[in-house]
Amino acid sequence: MPLHRKLRYGMVGGGPGAFIGGVHRSAAALDGEIELVAGAFSSDPEKSKQQGEALNLAPDRVYESYEEMALHEAARPEDERIDFVSIVVPNFLHYDVASTFIERGFHVVCDKPMTTSLEDAEKLCRLVEAHNVVFALTHNYTGYPLVKQARAMVQNGEIGTVRKVVAEYPQGWLAEPLEEEGNKQASWRTDPDLAGAGALGDIGSHAENLARYVTGLEIERLCADVGTVVEGRGIDDDVNMLARFSNGARGVLYCSQISQGEENNLRIRVYGTEGSIDWRQEDPHRLKVRRNGAPQQLYTHGSEYLADVAQHNTRLPAGHPEAFIEAFANVYRNAGRTIAARLAGEAPSPFDLDFPTVQDGAVGVHFIQTALESGRQEAWVDASYSPPGSESTRGTDRT
Amino acid sequence: MPLHRKLRYGMVGGGPGAFIGGVHRSAAALDGEIELVAGAFSSDPEKSKQQGEALNLAPDRVYESYEEMALHEAARPEDERIDFVSIVVPNFLHYDVASTFIERGFHVVCDKPMTTSLEDAEKLCRLVEAHNVVFALTHNYTGYPLVKQARAMVQNGEIGTVRKVVAEYPQGWLAEPLEEEGNKQASWRTDPDLAGAGALGDIGSHAENLARYVTGLEIERLCADVGTVVEGRGIDDDVNMLARFSNGARGVLYCSQISQGEENNLRIRVYGTEGSIDWRQEDPHRLKVRRNGAPQQLYTHGSEYLADVAQHNTRLPAGHPEAFIEAFANVYRNAGRTIAARLAGEAPSPFDLDFPTVQDGAVGVHFIQTALESGRQEAWVDASYSPPGSESTRGTDRT
Amino acid sequence: MPLHRKLRYGMVGGGPGAFIGGVHRSAAALDGEIELVAGAFSSDPEKSKQQGEALNLAPDRVYESYEEMALHEAARPEDERIDFVSIVVPNFLHYDVASTFIERGFHVVCDKPMTTSLEDAEKLCRLVEAHNVVFALTHNYTGYPLVKQARAMVQNGEIGTVRKVVAEYPQGWLAEPLEEEGNKQASWRTDPDLAGAGALGDIGSHAENLARYVTGLEIERLCADVGTVVEGRGIDDDVNMLARFSNGARGVLYCSQISQGEENNLRIRVYGTEGSIDWRQEDPHRLKVRRNGAPQQLYTHGSEYLADVAQHNTRLPAGHPEAFIEAFANVYRNAGRTIAARLAGEAPSPFDLDFPTVQDGAVGVHFIQTALESGRQEAWVDASYSPPGSESTRGTDRT
Amino acid sequence: MPLHRKLRYGMVGGGPGAFIGGVHRSAAALDGEIELVAGAFSSDPEKSKQQGEALNLAPDRVYESYEEMALHEAARPEDERIDFVSIVVPNFLHYDVASTFIERGFHVVCDKPMTTSLEDAEKLCRLVEAHNVVFALTHNYTGYPLVKQARAMVQNGEIGTVRKVVAEYPQGWLAEPLEEEGNKQASWRTDPDLAGAGALGDIGSHAENLARYVTGLEIERLCADVGTVVEGRGIDDDVNMLARFSNGARGVLYCSQISQGEENNLRIRVYGTEGSIDWRQEDPHRLKVRRNGAPQQLYTHGSEYLADVAQHNTRLPAGHPEAFIEAFANVYRNAGRTIAARLAGEAPSPFDLDFPTVQDGAVGVHFIQTALESGRQEAWVDASYSPPGSESTRGTDRT
Repeated sequence: MPLHRKLRYGMVGGGPGAFIGGVHRSAAALDGEIELVAGAFSSDPEKSKQQGEALNLAPDRVYESYEEMALHEAARPEDERIDFVSIVVPNFLHYDVASTFIERGFHVVCDKPMTTSLEDAEKLCRLVEAHNVVFALTHNYTGYPLVKQARAMVQNGEIGTVRKVVAEYPQGWLAEPLEEEGNKQASWRTDPDLAGAGALGDIGSHAENLARYVTGLEIERLCADVGTVVEGRGIDDDVNMLARFSNGARGVLYCSQISQGEENNLRIRVYGTEGSIDWRQEDPHRLKVRRNGAPQQLYTHGSEYLADVAQHNTRLPAGHPEAFIEAFANVYRNAGRTIAARLAGEAPSPFDLDFPTVQDGAVGVHFIQTALESGRQEAWVDASYSPPGSESTRGTDRT
Repeated sequence: MPLHRKLRYGMVGGGPGAFIGGVHRSAAALDGEIELVAGAFSSDPEKSKQQGEALNLAPDRVYESYEEMALHEAARPEDERIDFVSIVVPNFLHYDVASTFIERGFHVVCDKPMTTSLEDAEKLCRLVEAHNVVFALTHNYTGYPLVKQARAMVQNGEIGTVRKVVAEYPQGWLAEPLEEEGNKQASWRTDPDLAGAGALGDIGSHAENLARYVTGLEIERLCADVGTVVEGRGIDDDVNMLARFSNGARGVLYCSQISQGEENNLRIRVYGTEGSIDWRQEDPHRLKVRRNGAPQQLYTHGSEYLADVAQHNTRLPAGHPEAFIEAFANVYRNAGRTIAARLAGEAPSPFDLDFPTVQDGAVGVHFIQTALESGRQEAWVDASYSPPGSESTRGTDRT
Repeated sequence: MPLHRKLRYGMVGGGPGAFIGGVHRSAAALDGEIELVAGAFSSDPEKSKQQGEALNLAPDRVYESYEEMALHEAARPEDERIDFVSIVVPNFLHYDVASTFIERGFHVVCDKPMTTSLEDAEKLCRLVEAHNVVFALTHNYTGYPLVKQARAMVQNGEIGTVRKVVAEYPQGWLAEPLEEEGNKQASWRTDPDLAGAGALGDIGSHAENLARYVTGLEIERLCADVGTVVEGRGIDDDVNMLARFSNGARGVLYCSQISQGEENNLRIRVYGTEGSIDWRQEDPHRLKVRRNGAPQQLYTHGSEYLADVAQHNTRLPAGHPEAFIEAFANVYRNAGRTIAARLAGEAPSPFDLDFPTVQDGAVGVHFIQTALESGRQEAWVDASYSPPGSESTRGTDRT
Repeated sequence: MPLHRKLRYGMVGGGPGAFIGGVHRSAAALDGEIELVAGAFSSDPEKSKQQGEALNLAPDRVYESYEEMALHEAARPEDERIDFVSIVVPNFLHYDVASTFIERGFHVVCDKPMTTSLEDAEKLCRLVEAHNVVFALTHNYTGYPLVKQARAMVQNGEIGTVRKVVAEYPQGWLAEPLEEEGNKQASWRTDPDLAGAGALGDIGSHAENLARYVTGLEIERLCADVGTVVEGRGIDDDVNMLARFSNGARGVLYCSQISQGEENNLRIRVYGTEGSIDWRQEDPHRLKVRRNGAPQQLYTHGSEYLADVAQHNTRLPAGHPEAFIEAFANVYRNAGRTIAARLAGEAPSPFDLDFPTVQDGAVGVHFIQTALESGRQEAWVDASYSPPGSESTRGTDRT
């Protein structure tokens, strides 16, 4: 941290009762490098104020709207104002909030999926480039050390050429029509206007991002079976697809929110010519590595034999498991250090640049749209895509 | 066993060096109800003789060809001759051998896939009906007690209406072109003329059979991505597909023989409106049962709370695991008892009738052909099918 | 098999309703090398006859008592009479039955624990030597291929010098006083007169045998806490102990039959200077191998990288699990081949000699007695012991 | 939080290169309720300063010694000075540092084991009572939600009366004499003068605390085999023991640092008359619950069916695993809220009082001393103990 101070940020969304806002705050706080100093926590000014008090913020840094926050924070002295904004509102608002802050030169950490239309996603790509800000998208699962290990092993050729990818993301929490019972999370996540897409947007995009991060491959064609299983629901809740990747590898991807009894069982298996890897989010501190004719290997978190990037994103020694919040914190820490380097006029390290970018976000939105289209057609469709923006706006070399 | 004697059988195939022949012999021997008394173990008479000696058979019951065996055994006195034949030759020979014995009135246990053409499969269905013999196909995985438990739970409504099925069967042993290195198993299994289909025939048909057995549902439509991954191979070795079942449930099925590091990892997950089940062949004495909002449950082999059919197909108490051979033996025991009942002029019990039949075999061959066709078209295709034959030739009520 | 025929055996015990008799019969039958031709299945002649019929035995080979069986079988022509006897009666009868058959020159396979007194155990050692018969004790858990792998790895120095052994054997089935509810298994196993010892005899002796087999070390001192937990029970049902092995290694051993919810969870962990191994009976086809600073390894059944002895005792390729009966069958197969070699006047192979012997049985009985004594004293006691008998009566080089 | 501000704390120890200091800082920061404002991070003033800078502390709050820190912080205005001190120095210093701060009225969070002598431990008990401060000992493993679930289930009678406890804590990192190779962690932890005890103090005390927390039972007698396995080491590194609890239940406890390949494998199994529970630190978000005659159950972190206390100590929904840092943070959060209540003149909630106290620390030190004595005597010894101090200094009702 070349800044000799903590980074300062403000949050948009994350009011009382929200889930993901608290996760972002814990993730940002974990390493003592970032502090929350401002917020517009709710579209309801009273709730925003209440949350600000609960978080012990200065009253004049708790705003009634994100527009007010952008305006006032931009007007504060440089040694006081926020360095970046965290956006944790429902998907359909991401674009408006993000563009408002980017246009005032603030760096951004934004929840996924990035936008509800490809048009907005591409506009964000161009805005980020035009205003030269850092934009991090919280595809938090790629923050896990063992996911980074998996990626490093693919990059280093340890499993040879990738031949097959199986990425699955079953959940069960929407097996019943919770949205009709007043469940807040369920309500906005199953409303096409607020969420854009259902299972595909909420978790399918994580599966796609994970597959792309680990393998370094793009999906070129796909054939999706897009299902709305629960009666009366207006949005996809179970989507299965076949895919072909840029190198010809075959893929099976699926996401589901009606899989009774499943919690948050994101898993990826990658089979190469020389070996395979298998990682599961509910057992995140382990990575199975297998090769024909050799004992299966279990790589564990914190071990000295792991790749540098895995060790860099780990805080504890082997046997002391890290989990969801620590992985989320890795997105914050890496993006935060990139922002700090930018502020200090220094070059970020390659480790710092390891977070999902605005262009990853555009690829994700394109993936969602393409899968929905394939489902409508009941056919294989072209899925190749290259987001706008130069190399300089990309966090990592992965595209 | 109403016969007051052991059943007698002869084997076609299973000579020195073969894999599956020995499994059939152990499975048949396990319960002391069936004895091997004859064999035509190889197309090479010398090898057949050698195998007969190793098995301590009477020399005059070891034959130079299956035709000779059928002829001579049929000519033996009734209290000596074989009751049934076990067919463990490569797929392309199943039809010829089976029809030869059926036409002489012998009952049959046959390895899978049943035939290499749908035409032959349907002819077998008609022959079995015409000659009124018992025909069992060794889809051995449905012999596992916990698979029977899964089926019973679906039947009893314990997981509600089935919404989604994920059946996967990854192996890694053909990740390299072993067939070019003289590996006998690899050679015939990757030769389109001898095997008919590759991964689809060898293991995909198991996945289909397992899904159908557990859920009681038929596949109505499917879209397959049929791959030949290893260069120079003339047959499918990695096949992924989307499916729709007769009740509208969605399915993901795949089989692969190029999945480095995988051994024999057949797995099925079935998600219903009320719960889900998860079974894996490499951990066969356990069944995971999950429901939203309740602790996960692990059903274990030999437990008193299991369904009657699961307990009936189990030999040992809980904690004393049974595995592959015992499951295989359940196919033999159930089919054998059905044969014995037939010989004794009695009605078999419902438990006895619980084995895969000639019609399951025809469904499997149709499935293989349909998946290959979908792969050629790169499109969804109709997969509905009803095999010839009356109810009376069906081992169970499952079609 | 140099005999060119199947081995013939008779069984004492294993009547209707018995558990272990059926396991012995399946284990003996599995490989097609051994056949059951005679039996005295129950002290009740009617039940013996009934069992003989169910097993399709010739009526004149089903006896009313073991004495009658020994007498008549010895009088039969050599090409008809049994080669060995299997003894599956309650513990207190083992000595009488075994000595009766040994004195007539029959080889013996006997269930464990071998006897209920050390005196009887030592008499058996001397009888076996005097009559030059093969005596195998069915400590079946050492028949598992991965247990043999563990032993091979210790022998080959793959985990260095053994420093610590943890052997545990929890069961829960006697957590309630089943013996008061007419449960047949519970009744004799908790009767001091019939069983000799409780948990220690039934399962503790397995744990001791397993530890000794895998490590090649003898227990020299031990301190046991011998408990009778269920009120009104007259025998030990929960025993925990500290141990020191011949090379100074420390041990923790326990057996329990009151551990609610446990099925048959025998497990052994051995820690050496260079690595450790971990095997669990409920997951018997896998062996964990761990070393500081390296990924954990999972050795799986049927794999080519396993030691020769593990492969020799395996029937199926990797991914096709074998379990309890197959392990039990390895004791039968190895002992049977040793008997066959003896009958053929040939030397058995080292693989054939790999089964527990009469001397292992004496060590086991001594262990039981010593643990009971330590419990009475509530103190560390000397546990060193060397059973009578020359090297020639030992199946393996492990003592 | 009735304070309407964050709690402020200073840290003693935790300089560059230390392990546990960083964990304490992350744990304290996680929930945004506590902030680090001061520190005496090293006995080397230069290193202390360096660490203070890295943590962006005000230079005048970074001290050259803990005495200076106690003096200066006590002299600061009430709205600036630290509320409590975190003590993360080697064991032998705990007493001096803690007593220094307690005597000035500061609350304390202290690493374990609490002291290196029972005398010091008891003095601390009296000091805490005399100065009426909150004292929390970081037996962090009892901070895990599923450990709290286990405790709640025992308390609620869900497994009946406890009959048997197996607590084991194997590590492998000291299998080699790292202390001779300049490893800093190894050096002080194996130095009797600095650490007091070896494996017993470092991890054995965790096992004891965990057993006591979950069961609510005290150890009354024990028999320990205290080993120093690695040649040349002056302290225990492998300790196994038998135990009897206050209700007569039997126990097996062990801790080891020479168990090659083990990472941090703390595990506890508790067997009651009605069921059993099984928790393992390397899989901390799950709890196995088993009962005879019923499917095994797997309770998972974040689930609604968990006890209130488990849910209260959880931040994320099911399927989003929490791990080591979050459990550690629970000790900080609960102790912190108790301190905040004290400062606000309010009564803490029962949930807040759920953290290990000074009296737990005294019990732990007594346990260590007793086990060492038993090892010296090679005999069972009395282990009953009641620490000084009134009920009011106890965080929970567990003693």
